[in-house]
Amino acid sequence: MDKAYIKDIYRHPEKYADKEIQVEGWIRTLRASKAFGFIELNDGTFFKNLQVVFEENLENFKEVSKFGISTALIVKGKLVLTPGSKQAFEIKATSIEVEGHADKEYPLQKKRHSFEFLRSIAHLRPRSNTFSAVFRIRSLAAFAIHEFFQKRGFVYVHTPIITGSDCEGAGEMFRVTTLDLNNVPKNEEGKIDTTKDFFGKETNLTVSGQLQGEAYALAFRNIYTFGPTFRAENSNTARHAAEFWMIEPEIAFADLADNMELAEDMIKYIINYVLENAPEEMEFFSKFIDKGLLERLNNIVSSDFEKITYTKAIEILKSAKKEFEFPVEWGCDLQTEHERYITEEVYKKPVFVTDYPKDIKAFYMRMNDDNKTVAAMDLLVPGVGEIIGGSQREERLDVLESRIEEMGLHKDDYWWYLELRKYGGTRHAGFGLGFERVIMYLTGISNIRDVVSFPRTVKTAEF
Amino acid sequence: MDKAYIKDIYRHPEKYADKEIQVEGWIRTLRASKAFGFIELNDGTFFKNLQVVFEENLENFKEVSKFGISTALIVKGKLVLTPGSKQAFEIKATSIEVEGHADKEYPLQKKRHSFEFLRSIAHLRPRSNTFSAVFRIRSLAAFAIHEFFQKRGFVYVHTPIITGSDCEGAGEMFRVTTLDLNNVPKNEEGKIDTTKDFFGKETNLTVSGQLQGEAYALAFRNIYTFGPTFRAENSNTARHAAEFWMIEPEIAFADLADNMELAEDMIKYIINYVLENAPEEMEFFSKFIDKGLLERLNNIVSSDFEKITYTKAIEILKSAKKEFEFPVEWGCDLQTEHERYITEEVYKKPVFVTDYPKDIKAFYMRMNDDNKTVAAMDLLVPGVGEIIGGSQREERLDVLESRIEEMGLHKDDYWWYLELRKYGGTRHAGFGLGFERVIMYLTGISNIRDVVSFPRTVKTAEF
Repeated sequence: MDKAYIKDIYRHPEKYADKEIQVEGWIRTLRASKAFGFIELNDGTFFKNLQVVFEENLENFKEVSKFGISTALIVKGKLVLTPGSKQAFEIKATSIEVEGHADKEYPLQKKRHSFEFLRSIAHLRPRSNTFSAVFRIRSLAAFAIHEFFQKRGFVYVHTPIITGSDCEGAGEMFRVTTLDLNNVPKNEEGKIDTTKDFFGKETNLTVSGQLQGEAYALAFRNIYTFGPTFRAENSNTARHAAEFWMIEPEIAFADLADNMELAEDMIKYIINYVLENAPEEMEFFSKFIDKGLLERLNNIVSSDFEKITYTKAIEILKSAKKEFEFPVEWGCDLQTEHERYITEEVYKKPVFVTDYPKDIKAFYMRMNDDNKTVAAMDLLVPGVGEIIGGSQREERLDVLESRIEEMGLHKDDYWWYLELRKYGGTRHAGFGLGFERVIMYLTGISNIRDVVSFPRTVKTAEF
Repeated sequence: MDKAYIKDIYRHPEKYADKEIQVEGWIRTLRASKAFGFIELNDGTFFKNLQVVFEENLENFKEVSKFGISTALIVKGKLVLTPGSKQAFEIKATSIEVEGHADKEYPLQKKRHSFEFLRSIAHLRPRSNTFSAVFRIRSLAAFAIHEFFQKRGFVYVHTPIITGSDCEGAGEMFRVTTLDLNNVPKNEEGKIDTTKDFFGKETNLTVSGQLQGEAYALAFRNIYTFGPTFRAENSNTARHAAEFWMIEPEIAFADLADNMELAEDMIKYIINYVLENAPEEMEFFSKFIDKGLLERLNNIVSSDFEKITYTKAIEILKSAKKEFEFPVEWGCDLQTEHERYITEEVYKKPVFVTDYPKDIKAFYMRMNDDNKTVAAMDLLVPGVGEIIGGSQREERLDVLESRIEEMGLHKDDYWWYLELRKYGGTRHAGFGLGFERVIMYLTGISNIRDVVSFPRTVKTAEF
């Protein structure tokens, strides 16, 4: 008797037709009459369930009829094709064994639950339709990203999570320490004696691997990072988590145009990959979570992304016949409402906005000849707003040094980063893609807490 | 004129033969006479360099002749096949432009440097032969692991890095906090007021994603994690880092035998993948870093891994005609010297050791019928010792609860982990693979600091 995964049965039912097989899985639903019963069995390999039919002649018919949702079973029987009926095949059970009972208090009964409630049972929610779909998409999208870069010869770099410098400058950081907080050692000046800490200095959780990524791009030409990053910001919104994963490619001998091309290719690759590899899940999202999702994604795959400058974006926004909560002036940062207006209402497709004012962007972005703007790019997509932020990096040592000073930072903190410009520096560029934003975008799920296995947000670090 | 990557030229020289092409890269070596010169150019896409020949008729011949190591160049010229000579092809330059000068102080000059020195320039060392090879292998091995699991339908899970529980029990942890260490808030009892911390409780960096991985295996059947983990242990050895990456697969409806099969298949897959995709790097390691490496790896791919019990291992060690530093008795933990003796001298191939005494293993490992041993497995490999540790997990709620109590742990801390046994628990098993150990194993590099981009160890968190 062959063991079979439910996914394989769905993909190639003809291979199993009329054969005795064994499947293992968990009960999603069960209904039974006096003479027969039906089980929707899910084995985790596939979004859909396999229908199991059992009849009175089954040795343990009565026992089986009373099994609770989520009971783990080993089912043996014949796979029968049933063309014309609701499902294309079912298994006629000759034996149903219990692998693990499920208590009747099992909280994921058939009725619909709110996402809020499901977050409180994050250890069980991947067993629901919605979350099994979310986390399979998350897995596939992660692989799509690796495959995209590896096929192009990019080197995957694990940049450090614990950082000894606070000079990444992208936000509030978490401190990492082994000091006894009950009794923090102080030095002669009365300050924290960080020499007693594990690393002999103050350390924090990284907010970005970009600076280290640049060092590797100047060795391997094309690299990417894919790892967790952290923000200790007190933002309790549907879009912010304290811990999230980020992808940061960095390319040498490349400028902003190359960077945009890479970003566009990557986004399309990810979308195509999940559409091809998880059509059932994507259809589910488009039907039950975000109507029109498939249409929107298909539209993106087939359109050329628009490219406009920040200055042009400001013109568009100022002449818009729309009231914005935040007024717009050249020099201001774009808010989500502005970004969504441009991508959803004006262009109706993804839009790169480039060449932002230098004062609202980071020190490492390359200064344009106008001395007012930098070679930055943000990618805005319908339904989300900004999904990618990137730039060409400042490769001119003197310009970079004066930018660091201008921003009140300290050159010494960047000694190795500056050395990259001294020893064969090249044009180079890169961007950051928030992985959770991608998953929200692919699934239509609107709260970041629902695309992270066990989310970490302000006041929440359960499980 | 076509731009070409040096990798593509090496893989398909015929495609570029006699064509005008453009390559971009960094000078690895340069020697010039009055009439002509040679540059070994590396563009980061490939382990080997491309030979560039330039002659007196080059406009900037004199300038080029004086370029320092690591100068970034844009070279145009014709690719000429040179069968019979030392290299199979070279490019005859018609134009050499500087993309970025390299200061003459560039520390990676041609002479050999110690690995210790190279660690102090971790931002530049990937430009050396050894480290370009190490970090390309690291990238390829990471992808091999993803591909191995994804091909089998495993779901990739990002388990949390910041953990609110200290119940993983695998070692000393780093604390994560936003409290002001100069002024730690205290509660009425004079204890640290963790309610004021970012997450409203004490949080640490994870030492393992296994417990969360189990929750996902009981939804998706087959899952894996691949992420950073942390140990705040004060071990200043060549094998320990405070931050390292780990792979933790977990499989449901599966026992220890399935677990060993998976581990063996995975190890072979990774080795085959790097041998196929980086033959130049692997040859380099076998020649210059660890003589006999290729032979050892090829041997592993073609052998069936041995399986012995811990009890048998103890017998072998006790009857060994060898003095061990640590004496051996049933009940003791195996030391690296014991592990290496078994795998290198007795079996001369990888060996799974199973069924360890319960007292030296974790609470979650499944109790065997003898009530003395647990269904654990360690994989020992020649040259390294333990590379994988895993087990079948205790799926019986009552047994698990009494093991938790026996070990002096608190049931309440594990409420959700215990619930996994209440609601359709199944046989399940999994293992952990330290990614850095794999890279050391694949490359023959003997210090973990040399397989991590920017290593974090006791008193070291530079860059």
